[in-house]
Amino acid sequence: MEPFKDDKVLLAHGSGGRLSHELVERGFLPAFDNPLLSKLDDSAVFEAKGRLAFTTDSYIVTPIFFPGGDIGKLAVCGTVNDLSMSGAVPLYLSLSFIIEEGFPLSDLGRIVTSIKEAAEEAGVKVVTGDTKVASRGSVDKLFVNTAGVGVVPHGVDISASNARPGDKLILSGPIGQHGIAVMAMREGLKFATAVESDCAPLNKLVAEMLEVSGQVHCLRDPTRGGLATTLNDFATQSDVGILIYEDMIPVSDEVRAACEMLGFDPFHVANEGRLVAVAAPDDAQGIVERMRQNKYGAEAAIIGEVREEHRGKVVMKTSLGASRIVDMMVGELLPRIC
Amino acid sequence: MEPFKDDKVLLAHGSGGRLSHELVERGFLPAFDNPLLSKLDDSAVFEAKGRLAFTTDSYIVTPIFFPGGDIGKLAVCGTVNDLSMSGAVPLYLSLSFIIEEGFPLSDLGRIVTSIKEAAEEAGVKVVTGDTKVASRGSVDKLFVNTAGVGVVPHGVDISASNARPGDKLILSGPIGQHGIAVMAMREGLKFATAVESDCAPLNKLVAEMLEVSGQVHCLRDPTRGGLATTLNDFATQSDVGILIYEDMIPVSDEVRAACEMLGFDPFHVANEGRLVAVAAPDDAQGIVERMRQNKYGAEAAIIGEVREEHRGKVVMKTSLGASRIVDMMVGELLPRIC
Repeated sequence: MEPFKDDKVLLAHGSGGRLSHELVERGFLPAFDNPLLSKLDDSAVFEAKGRLAFTTDSYIVTPIFFPGGDIGKLAVCGTVNDLSMSGAVPLYLSLSFIIEEGFPLSDLGRIVTSIKEAAEEAGVKVVTGDTKVASRGSVDKLFVNTAGVGVVPHGVDISASNARPGDKLILSGPIGQHGIAVMAMREGLKFATAVESDCAPLNKLVAEMLEVSGQVHCLRDPTRGGLATTLNDFATQSDVGILIYEDMIPVSDEVRAACEMLGFDPFHVANEGRLVAVAAPDDAQGIVERMRQNKYGAEAAIIGEVREEHRGKVVMKTSLGASRIVDMMVGELLPRIC
Repeated sequence: MEPFKDDKVLLAHGSGGRLSHELVERGFLPAFDNPLLSKLDDSAVFEAKGRLAFTTDSYIVTPIFFPGGDIGKLAVCGTVNDLSMSGAVPLYLSLSFIIEEGFPLSDLGRIVTSIKEAAEEAGVKVVTGDTKVASRGSVDKLFVNTAGVGVVPHGVDISASNARPGDKLILSGPIGQHGIAVMAMREGLKFATAVESDCAPLNKLVAEMLEVSGQVHCLRDPTRGGLATTLNDFATQSDVGILIYEDMIPVSDEVRAACEMLGFDPFHVANEGRLVAVAAPDDAQGIVERMRQNKYGAEAAIIGEVREEHRGKVVMKTSLGASRIVDMMVGELLPRIC
């Protein structure tokens, strides 16, 4: 990215004046070039019809560059995934930076490139944005907020409150990779095999799932709080019991080893490219087979079912045949994970 | 707000686990109660039809409480106004907090109440949100991001690129109050009369302007960079010249005195409840008269006109009859103003 050389971000880049305009025109517009953004009005205006989904997330992950991604890719994938989890086709993103004075413009350039690439993969456009610069020490390096708008296709009705007894639970792949990748980078831990973040846009995977079944009832990406929190959300919001089988839940050897070493429960570790679905029992196997054809669902598996019993609770059959309650995380596992 | 007593925000309030859920359920849902938000899905889903406007801003103002408002009111008004400046009727907001560990929950409660009140005044709903907590020293107290969605009424076409020679420029009220109020609070300055921020939602004012005229061509709220930056945006984006008359631009005695003392140009000082409009010459006076009936437009005035000459430039006739170029701000006047 040409305009971002080795210089630093200045307070004046956030002043709204000349340097702000230059940053937008030379740094951001070439990356995100589209007619909605390039009008540079206070809002982007576009035609829409039907049910729209709208979501937001702020990203404060540290370090901002980690194995498998960076804060920019994370911000795009996180918001694309939140839209997708409502069954929406993501269309437009807003992008807001809060940058520490003195942050290297070259690093900002890397992040902008990463956002551009992730947005291209997901097929979404950055149509509006904002840049603030805070004095040294007021913000740790760089924070990103993305909001997103998508369209929910006709007939799609997905909500964490739609799980019904008898439904099957589907997980798209191994858990815990994002959290362990970030943590290992932060703490300088080395494992035999490097763990990479699973950070990925899941909108195409969701579209394929909805192609093969009209009976996907719930979708959620188990980010902060991990799989345990998502399953508890389903149990509470749908007022059902959830039973999962430990043996069926994929966890890589590296993640398992890291969790054992650190005393983490992989069920509480954040993911940024996984989803959990609740679907009608007759459709579940077909959905899993379709998911396995997508690289982000290659290890998809049925991991349990929805029950009438123990409403509001998640119960796991362990490898040894015992049952245990899987609770939401109570404290803080790892701050600034996303 | 009952649940926000004298306790502090903990890292676990941002973990996605139990305490995050409690904060949302006890702290946020009662304030912003509406069916879209209370589903607590990853996105809010609503019906829409026509042209939509979409915008975002992050707010890092310091101090977070200032005369005439706080960061919460600012975040609502700023996004409501950005939508309004595209001629849109604002409908829905997202709300994302980044909070420093240890921030008083009672202050968070004040900010939430302020957001609720500003949203009620503007008639918008907070439908989706996010809360992150960063460890002490990683963020200065609290940052807020709002994104917003609105509907552009049929036939409305407002853009900073629509100004035409002959059009009149209208300003809704005295300039510089927000910037001076924040700066005075920050620096502990005292003036004979306290200056209050002009922070206000302008959507109803805009709706009234559009009622009396179909020939409002441009609208913009002169925030960071002040009136000078907004006028330069119009001149550049519409490729026209702009002529304004110093005598016609309202500046309060307090703001003028503060600017003289501090060496600021009131044209570069931020406003958060003012707008500049460009409208067809025959309609301008009628628009101004209608604006004066609204408390946020009580001092509305025609301040100049759009010209064929000196394209891309803003020229001011001074009180003494001289002409000077009004340029965009080049450096940084006052960081963290919004």
